[in-house]
Amino acid sequence: MMTESYKVSRAHHPEDRTVIVRGTVIGGDRVVVMAGPCAVESREQVMAAAESVSRSGAKLLRGGAFKPRTSPYAFQGMGEEGLRLLREAGDRFNLGVVTEVMDASQVPMVGEYADMFQIGARNMQNINLLRAVGKTQKPVLLKRGMSATIEEWLCSAEYIAAEGNVNIVLCERGIRTFEPMTRYTLDLSAIPVVRSMTSLPVIVDPSHATGSRAYVMPMARAAVAVGANGLIVEVHPSPETALCDGSQALTTDDFEHLMNDIRSMAPIVGMRLS
Amino acid sequence: MMTESYKVSRAHHPEDRTVIVRGTVIGGDRVVVMAGPCAVESREQVMAAAESVSRSGAKLLRGGAFKPRTSPYAFQGMGEEGLRLLREAGDRFNLGVVTEVMDASQVPMVGEYADMFQIGARNMQNINLLRAVGKTQKPVLLKRGMSATIEEWLCSAEYIAAEGNVNIVLCERGIRTFEPMTRYTLDLSAIPVVRSMTSLPVIVDPSHATGSRAYVMPMARAAVAVGANGLIVEVHPSPETALCDGSQALTTDDFEHLMNDIRSMAPIVGMRLS
Amino acid sequence: MMTESYKVSRAHHPEDRTVIVRGTVIGGDRVVVMAGPCAVESREQVMAAAESVSRSGAKLLRGGAFKPRTSPYAFQGMGEEGLRLLREAGDRFNLGVVTEVMDASQVPMVGEYADMFQIGARNMQNINLLRAVGKTQKPVLLKRGMSATIEEWLCSAEYIAAEGNVNIVLCERGIRTFEPMTRYTLDLSAIPVVRSMTSLPVIVDPSHATGSRAYVMPMARAAVAVGANGLIVEVHPSPETALCDGSQALTTDDFEHLMNDIRSMAPIVGMRLS
Amino acid sequence: MMTESYKVSRAHHPEDRTVIVRGTVIGGDRVVVMAGPCAVESREQVMAAAESVSRSGAKLLRGGAFKPRTSPYAFQGMGEEGLRLLREAGDRFNLGVVTEVMDASQVPMVGEYADMFQIGARNMQNINLLRAVGKTQKPVLLKRGMSATIEEWLCSAEYIAAEGNVNIVLCERGIRTFEPMTRYTLDLSAIPVVRSMTSLPVIVDPSHATGSRAYVMPMARAAVAVGANGLIVEVHPSPETALCDGSQALTTDDFEHLMNDIRSMAPIVGMRLS
Repeated sequence: MMTESYKVSRAHHPEDRTVIVRGTVIGGDRVVVMAGPCAVESREQVMAAAESVSRSGAKLLRGGAFKPRTSPYAFQGMGEEGLRLLREAGDRFNLGVVTEVMDASQVPMVGEYADMFQIGARNMQNINLLRAVGKTQKPVLLKRGMSATIEEWLCSAEYIAAEGNVNIVLCERGIRTFEPMTRYTLDLSAIPVVRSMTSLPVIVDPSHATGSRAYVMPMARAAVAVGANGLIVEVHPSPETALCDGSQALTTDDFEHLMNDIRSMAPIVGMRLS
Repeated sequence: MMTESYKVSRAHHPEDRTVIVRGTVIGGDRVVVMAGPCAVESREQVMAAAESVSRSGAKLLRGGAFKPRTSPYAFQGMGEEGLRLLREAGDRFNLGVVTEVMDASQVPMVGEYADMFQIGARNMQNINLLRAVGKTQKPVLLKRGMSATIEEWLCSAEYIAAEGNVNIVLCERGIRTFEPMTRYTLDLSAIPVVRSMTSLPVIVDPSHATGSRAYVMPMARAAVAVGANGLIVEVHPSPETALCDGSQALTTDDFEHLMNDIRSMAPIVGMRLS
Repeated sequence: MMTESYKVSRAHHPEDRTVIVRGTVIGGDRVVVMAGPCAVESREQVMAAAESVSRSGAKLLRGGAFKPRTSPYAFQGMGEEGLRLLREAGDRFNLGVVTEVMDASQVPMVGEYADMFQIGARNMQNINLLRAVGKTQKPVLLKRGMSATIEEWLCSAEYIAAEGNVNIVLCERGIRTFEPMTRYTLDLSAIPVVRSMTSLPVIVDPSHATGSRAYVMPMARAAVAVGANGLIVEVHPSPETALCDGSQALTTDDFEHLMNDIRSMAPIVGMRLS
Repeated sequence: MMTESYKVSRAHHPEDRTVIVRGTVIGGDRVVVMAGPCAVESREQVMAAAESVSRSGAKLLRGGAFKPRTSPYAFQGMGEEGLRLLREAGDRFNLGVVTEVMDASQVPMVGEYADMFQIGARNMQNINLLRAVGKTQKPVLLKRGMSATIEEWLCSAEYIAAEGNVNIVLCERGIRTFEPMTRYTLDLSAIPVVRSMTSLPVIVDPSHATGSRAYVMPMARAAVAVGANGLIVEVHPSPETALCDGSQALTTDDFEHLMNDIRSMAPIVGMRLS
C-alpha cells in the first residue's frame, strides 16, 4: 500500500532524516534516551525524576499529564497542571519535554508546554490527531499501535508528513500476541525492517512492552544492539509508590546503570549517545 | 479489571438492556439489521442503497461520511455533505441513520444528522471521543478494537456509561490474527462471552471481518445462530464501482436473500427480526 | 503454495468428497456429530457416554486413549486398554470409533481398534505420522494446528492424500489469539474459506476451542449455520468428576438438547443430520 | 501449571545448568554459535559450510537431513546419507553435529550420527519424540513452537527431563503474529523470562525467525545483547543456489563478520564466546 512517493519512504528520501528536539539530535548514528515517570504525580516527583534523568546524561524528559487508561476509574493524569510541572522541570534541568497529546483539540495547549508531541499506541490511527500535529512543525513521537503492521504505522506517519511536518520519530512499544509472560511482545525485528523502509528515526520503549522492571534492562540493551535510534524508558524516584505502572519503572540507580551500558554498547554498532 | 460496580456489567444490571434508535428496538430477543454502503459517494448511490435496505425490511441505514483510511491518499469520505445525504435518505425511507464520528470535536455536528453514533475500531480507546458521546443521550455503536480484549472493550463502553449515556450497542468486527485468508478473524465466541458479562446488546459486522462478499452470508447466518442481537452489513447498489471496500459489499439481491435467511433462522434461537 | 494440482484442492476435484465411517456418510449436505468423553477413564464411563451419544442420534463415538497433555505429570490416558473399551462401546451401540493416534509407530495398533484416526492439533505437521496414516485407507480426522494457516492445514492434508488416502475430514478447533476469555478463538470463517479451497469435508470442535460448557452450545449452532459438515463435541456422563477437560464437557442432557437444535437448524442451510 | 518441583525449573535447580556437546560448553556465561546450511544438499556443500563455520571460530555444525516441509512436494532432505555427510564434516573440522530428529522411531539412527538432537518447532509437543530423546543422555536442542507459550515450552522440556535427560538447550525461533514483514516475530523478551524460570541454557535462531538475510545480523547482535547463551544461524557457501531457505542464509563472509561482532559484544553483557 505504501509507495515510493510517500514522503516518509526511504525511496523518496534515501538519507537518514534527523529530528531536533531542544537542541538534541535524533536519528542517523545517534542513540537518544527519553526518560521519566509514566505519569506526572507531583512537583516533587517530577523534579526528582528530571534530576536523575539529567544527571545520568539523558537529554529528554518524558511524562504523562493526560493518561489514556483502560478503565475510566483509574488515575487519568494531572492535566494541564502536569504539563506546567513538566515544563518547569525541563527548563530547570535543560531537558526537552516529551508528552502525550490525546486529541486534536489538545494540540495547541500541549504544544505550549511540550518540545515534542507523543502520540500513543491507542491513537496511532486517530486521523484527526495525526493531521493536527502535522499542521505544526513540532517534533512528533509516533508509537506503533499494539496490533498495527509496520506498513500501517508508516501510513500513519505519512498522515503527519502529508500535512507538512516530517519531524517524526517512530517508537516500537510491543505488539499484542498470545504470550502472557510479558505485557506485549517487543518486536525488535521491526527496527531493521523500519530502517529499510523509511529514513525516519525509530526508537524503542522497553518499559510498556515488557511491563516488568527486570526485563527492561536486557531489552533496552538489545534495542541498542539491533540499531535503534534510542529508547524511551520509565524512571521513577520511588517506583513502589507510583500511581501508574510502577512495576515497570526503573529506579534512578537502575537508570544510571543503563546509561552506562548504552555508552559501552552503542559504538559496537557504529552509534553514539546523543 | 472490570468489576461488578461497572454500570455496563451484567452483575450491576442483570436484565438485558435495550437501545431504541428511531423507534427500532435493539437488544433482548430482537435481531436488528443495519445496512448500507461503506462510504457515502453520491446522492444517487445513497438513495438506491437506502431503498434496497428499506424494501428488504431492515430498519437502520449505515454509511460513512468521514472515513478513517489507512493511507492518507485514499478517499476520505464526503464529510458534512455525506451526512446531509444520509439524513435525507433516512427521512425518505424511514430508516434510522448510523454513521461514524471520528473525533470529540465532531460530536455536535454528526449528532445533528445521525440517529446513532458509530465509534470505529481504531477509535475504541479514543478516550476524549468516548467521553464526548457519553455526555449526549444519543445511542452509540461501539466497535471492538482489532486487538482489544473483551474486557478492554467493555471498559471503553464504561467510559461512555460513566458520563451518563447507557444507550450503547457493542459490535464485534473481527480481530487481528495470523490468518491471511480473511481480513480479520471474526470472533463469534465473543458473543456469548459478552452476553454473560454485560447486559448491553451486541451485534456483528461480517463485512469488515471477512473482507469478501462470498464469506459475508455464511458468517451473517452464524452470527444470528450464535445469539447476536443483530448485524451491520455493507450493501452497495453496484459494488464493482464502490470507492471503498467494494469487494465485501453485498448486492441488493444478496441482501434480500440474507434478510430472508435471518427471518428463518432467528426463531430457532428464540429471537425475531426487529 | 498450494496449487491446483494438489489432490485435496477443489480445483483438482470440484465435487464435494465424502468419507464413510462405519457406514456413516461425512461430507456433501450431511451434518455428522462425533461425541464422547475427552479421555477414556473407565468401562462404566465409556459405556454411559456411548449410550447417551447413541440415544441422541449421533453416529460416531470419540474418546482419547492416548492424551498429549501439556504437562508430563497430567493424566496421559489409559493406552491400549482405553482403545479396547472404545471398540467395545462402539460395537455395543453401533457407533463408529474416532480416536487419536500420536505417533507413526502407533498407527497399526490404533488402526486395529478405531474406525477413524484422529490427528491432533499438536501433530498437524508431524510429517511421519501424516505419511503413516496416508498409507492406510482408514478415514482420518485432521485437526488444524493452533497457529496453522488454512493453507498449511491443507498442505498437511495433502501429505496424507499424496500417499494415496483421500478419506480425510478436516476439523477447525480454534486458533491461538490474544483473547483470554476463551481457550482458543474458534475461527468459523475458516469453514467457508476451506470449502472454497478444498472438496474435503470440514467439521468444527467447539469444546476445545471455547473451553467452557456455556459457550459450546451457541458455537455448535453457529458452526452448523456457517455450513460445517459436522461437529465433534465432548460429552461426559458426570463432567464434574472428569479426569480431563471436565469444564468443557456437555452433560448428556445438554447433548440431547444440542442434537435437537441441529436437527432444526441444518435444513435452513440446506443440510441434514447424517 | 509449571511448579517448583519441575526438574527444569530455576526453583528446583537455582544454578545455571550447562550442557556439553563434543567438548563445547553451552550455558552459564558462554555464548555458543551453531551454524551451517538449512539442509544438507551435497558433500561439497556441507564441507564448504563446515570449513567456514570452523574457520570463523564456531564450534557446532548444524544441518538438516530430514526436513519437515509445509508442502509434501518440497525437497524433504537427503535422509541418512545426509547424516553421514554431516558426521564426516563434523569429524573433519572438529565440530559437534546438531541435526533434527522428526519422530521417535528415528532416535536410534539419528543418534548414531549426531552429537545433539534438534527437535523442531512443529514437534515441540510430539510427546513420544520428547520421551524418546529423554531416554538417551544425548544433548537436545528444543525449539519453541511457533505459537507455544513460554510455559508450554518449559513443560515440553520437562517431558525430556522427566525421563532422565536434563541435557537440554532451549531455542527461541520466532512466534506467529499478524506482522507480515518478517516470517515470524522473534520474541527476544522470552530470553530474560526463560532465564528467570529455568536454569537451562537458551539460544536464539534469527534465521528462521526473520526469513531475510538482511535482518539476521542485527537480530543476532540483539540476541547476544539480551543475554542469550548462543545462536543457531544458517550459513551457506552459495545461498542463491540453496534448495531450502536460501534467502535467509548468511554467506560465509557475513558469518565471519557476525562472529567478530559477537566477540566484541559478549563481554559487555558479561559473557564470552564458547
